[in-house]
Amino acid sequence: MAIRIGIVGLGKIARDQHVPVIEASPDFTLAAVASRSGGLPDLPYYSDIGDMLAGDDGLDAVALCQPPQVRYDAARAAILAGKHVFLEKPPGATLSEVKSLADLAQAHGVTLFASWHSRYASGVAAAKAWLAERTIRSVAVEWKEDVRVWHPGQAWIWEPGGLGVFDPGINAMSIVTHIMPRPFFLLDGTLSFPENRGAPIAADLTFRDDSGVPITAAFDWRQTGPQTWDISVDTVDGALVLSKGGSVLTIAGELQETAPEAEYRGLYDRFAGLVARGESDVDVSPLRHVADAYLRGARVVVEPFED
Amino acid sequence: MAIRIGIVGLGKIARDQHVPVIEASPDFTLAAVASRSGGLPDLPYYSDIGDMLAGDDGLDAVALCQPPQVRYDAARAAILAGKHVFLEKPPGATLSEVKSLADLAQAHGVTLFASWHSRYASGVAAAKAWLAERTIRSVAVEWKEDVRVWHPGQAWIWEPGGLGVFDPGINAMSIVTHIMPRPFFLLDGTLSFPENRGAPIAADLTFRDDSGVPITAAFDWRQTGPQTWDISVDTVDGALVLSKGGSVLTIAGELQETAPEAEYRGLYDRFAGLVARGESDVDVSPLRHVADAYLRGARVVVEPFED
Repeated sequence: MAIRIGIVGLGKIARDQHVPVIEASPDFTLAAVASRSGGLPDLPYYSDIGDMLAGDDGLDAVALCQPPQVRYDAARAAILAGKHVFLEKPPGATLSEVKSLADLAQAHGVTLFASWHSRYASGVAAAKAWLAERTIRSVAVEWKEDVRVWHPGQAWIWEPGGLGVFDPGINAMSIVTHIMPRPFFLLDGTLSFPENRGAPIAADLTFRDDSGVPITAAFDWRQTGPQTWDISVDTVDGALVLSKGGSVLTIAGELQETAPEAEYRGLYDRFAGLVARGESDVDVSPLRHVADAYLRGARVVVEPFED
Repeated sequence: MAIRIGIVGLGKIARDQHVPVIEASPDFTLAAVASRSGGLPDLPYYSDIGDMLAGDDGLDAVALCQPPQVRYDAARAAILAGKHVFLEKPPGATLSEVKSLADLAQAHGVTLFASWHSRYASGVAAAKAWLAERTIRSVAVEWKEDVRVWHPGQAWIWEPGGLGVFDPGINAMSIVTHIMPRPFFLLDGTLSFPENRGAPIAADLTFRDDSGVPITAAFDWRQTGPQTWDISVDTVDGALVLSKGGSVLTIAGELQETAPEAEYRGLYDRFAGLVARGESDVDVSPLRHVADAYLRGARVVVEPFED
């Protein structure tokens, strides 16, 4: 029996990924939409999640795709209504609210899934398996893109809680936390805030894992020309490179065969499995590293950014 | 049999609190000191923790009293050497390193204690018990002190990771997280950074608990004249006020009888109990709220601060 799911927040990511993936999945039936900005043909439409939860669409679950600053109230309402909840990344605007939601979901016996789509990029699973057996010397992350191309006019992303360059950077962190065999933490960092913005446009971070392996990360939203989403891991058996956001895997100079891109299908397969087993998956480690960067990093002011 | 303990980092807090409390406790024997700045009469002295751990003082435990930016390496070395570890507040410079230490301590079967001394202020336990039965309407925290009086010339406290005004503010957060019956999280905030410093001199924060109760916190290091360390909780049965850092408790206008100040005795009693039972206590919620404030709050630049 398919899981009847409602989408909340019909923005770019919902239209590009959630809707087509849900519609193609045998595990789910798209049953309703709640959004301020209009619905989809032939589907019940609500202007907010409260009305959707009060409707009679027989919903089992909701996928929350709004900006993180407003996601907590929706998630809480859905959990209290007994629905399973899929959270787009990042799972919230604060770590404490996500902790609170995780406890609430457990108390109410529903599934809460904090999704990290980049972990389902097609090279990631093989990278994780290969690194599990290796001695790692160092890791370098380079995540540099043109914000004007990828986030045109998205004001919320520049507000406090919108994460700025960490919005893509947290994708890198979600991969690194997934593939590294040992825990790591920030030693030092610099966050660059445009003079007129509440979120950083660039960040340079130095981490170390608990056996001393150095990890550096360079995030930048001012990249024009070629875009870079690379994670390079130097090991005693040669270099592993995940490029193009995790979709291309090279080991010791040899390109590995990988499946076609299917990040959101991976997420929805995972969500269906969690619901079937009555489990939750709320790994906050990528967001915790970002919070640590704000807490521990130095901040510098750079030139104003205009869209 | 008393726990043989070494102190690492013989700064102000170690001399004022740890040394006299350990010396007065039947549960502990002060057995060594590691510090860059000299030791104590009649005690083995080491210039760093590595030498202390390699010494023959029969240590069972260490108390780490250095600035948080350098505490991880010491804690890891102590855990790997099989020692129980008492962490001064805050337990680390990042949340991720504390998580890593907690996992490491568990794997090695030693006690890790993330201490929050203000939770042992003499009015706190009674406040917690009274609030557990009450309907709370709102909470207001006011923590305003003169940094020149309390932290003269402490350069590390103004560096990234030194927490600035959150160094005292986290004491308030440690009490509020302890006495409030429901979890809460940050909605909004403003952090004021002096133009020439890497940490805030003031913060205004708005939280909400998961049933909607508003909590405000005003932290300020620019207070001259009377100093304020107050937590006021409005309930349907009247107001509860914890003042003077939690040592004075007033309920519905009536001053409650409280024991004399003994915060660090409370901490060391707790640590001894944890060691005896083979348990750890690593509650990061006060530091998580501070990290959330950095992550979610807006930042404003204010006039330079000179010591």
